[in-house]
Amino acid sequence: MSIMGGVEAQMRLEDYIRDIPDFPKPGIIFKDITPLLGAPEAFREAVKRMAEPLRGRNLDAVVSVEARGFLFGAALAYELSLPIVPARKRGKLPYDVISVTYTLEYGEDAMEMHTDGVMAGQRVAVVDDVLATGGTLAAACQLVEKAGATVDVLSLVVELSFLEGRDKLQGYEISSVITY
Amino acid sequence: MSIMGGVEAQMRLEDYIRDIPDFPKPGIIFKDITPLLGAPEAFREAVKRMAEPLRGRNLDAVVSVEARGFLFGAALAYELSLPIVPARKRGKLPYDVISVTYTLEYGEDAMEMHTDGVMAGQRVAVVDDVLATGGTLAAACQLVEKAGATVDVLSLVVELSFLEGRDKLQGYEISSVITY
Repeated sequence: MSIMGGVEAQMRLEDYIRDIPDFPKPGIIFKDITPLLGAPEAFREAVKRMAEPLRGRNLDAVVSVEARGFLFGAALAYELSLPIVPARKRGKLPYDVISVTYTLEYGEDAMEMHTDGVMAGQRVAVVDDVLATGGTLAAACQLVEKAGATVDVLSLVVELSFLEGRDKLQGYEISSVITY
Repeated sequence: MSIMGGVEAQMRLEDYIRDIPDFPKPGIIFKDITPLLGAPEAFREAVKRMAEPLRGRNLDAVVSVEARGFLFGAALAYELSLPIVPARKRGKLPYDVISVTYTLEYGEDAMEMHTDGVMAGQRVAVVDDVLATGGTLAAACQLVEKAGATVDVLSLVVELSFLEGRDKLQGYEISSVITY
């Protein structure tokens, strides 16, 4: 506790996000979350800020998007004692899957989830590291709904609001720790 | 606490690992860890059993292998308050990388780690979900050593001892929660 009446300085999590110019291609500035992963207090703070808005919602599961989303989804599910359901690229999951096809900047891909991952009637949080153009997260939401479940909230570490990913995610509640 | 003098029944984590025949190809029986991810008490117990042998070692970081390894590596690093350093396939990491090439059953691949992920002189735990033939884990160990750091221990959820992955990992201490 500080001497300023119990108001502790907020940790600036932005300081743990690194800009990488021209990745994955020229003209793109990539937000690298590995410095955040490398600082345990900052990672813990990020996970706690993701967790707070999710408490008291009676969530049934955290759906976590491959691959960087796994890092935050797992810690968040661990913090909240919720099941983790992985959403993966085509062909990666070994059991029976439901699948949705989505359009990427460079073509098309499929995202899959096990048929016993999320049950009809459940309410889930969909977790990823970054909301950019929203295509991947929209596919994850479709998967959840194809399973007959409801997306209660999308939880992200970083939101790049200038890419207007929310346009693809209208009707969903979005919780972001850091917004650019 | 049970009535048997405080000896609690051990949770059988094997009950949360599912056999998938013929994945990823005919003749292989794949050990699917998603039921464990879907049961929060079992996931917590697995992470605690991974964490216990790692305490008191003065570890500097957890190196976590893409992609399923991220799920356990992140929760373990969160539990132990250690940095998480991702080891990923070629081209996935945005910053400067060190790289090692390794042989797969179906060809060759490269594994990469950021140059500022692990520092010379550090001691790390390398974490993945399953030890099978050991090729991926051997590559992760080479990466750590190329960075001038030391692999203190390998930590796994499942070890398939009949595949003799330890032969590729001689000289390393290996800690597995479940061994087949």
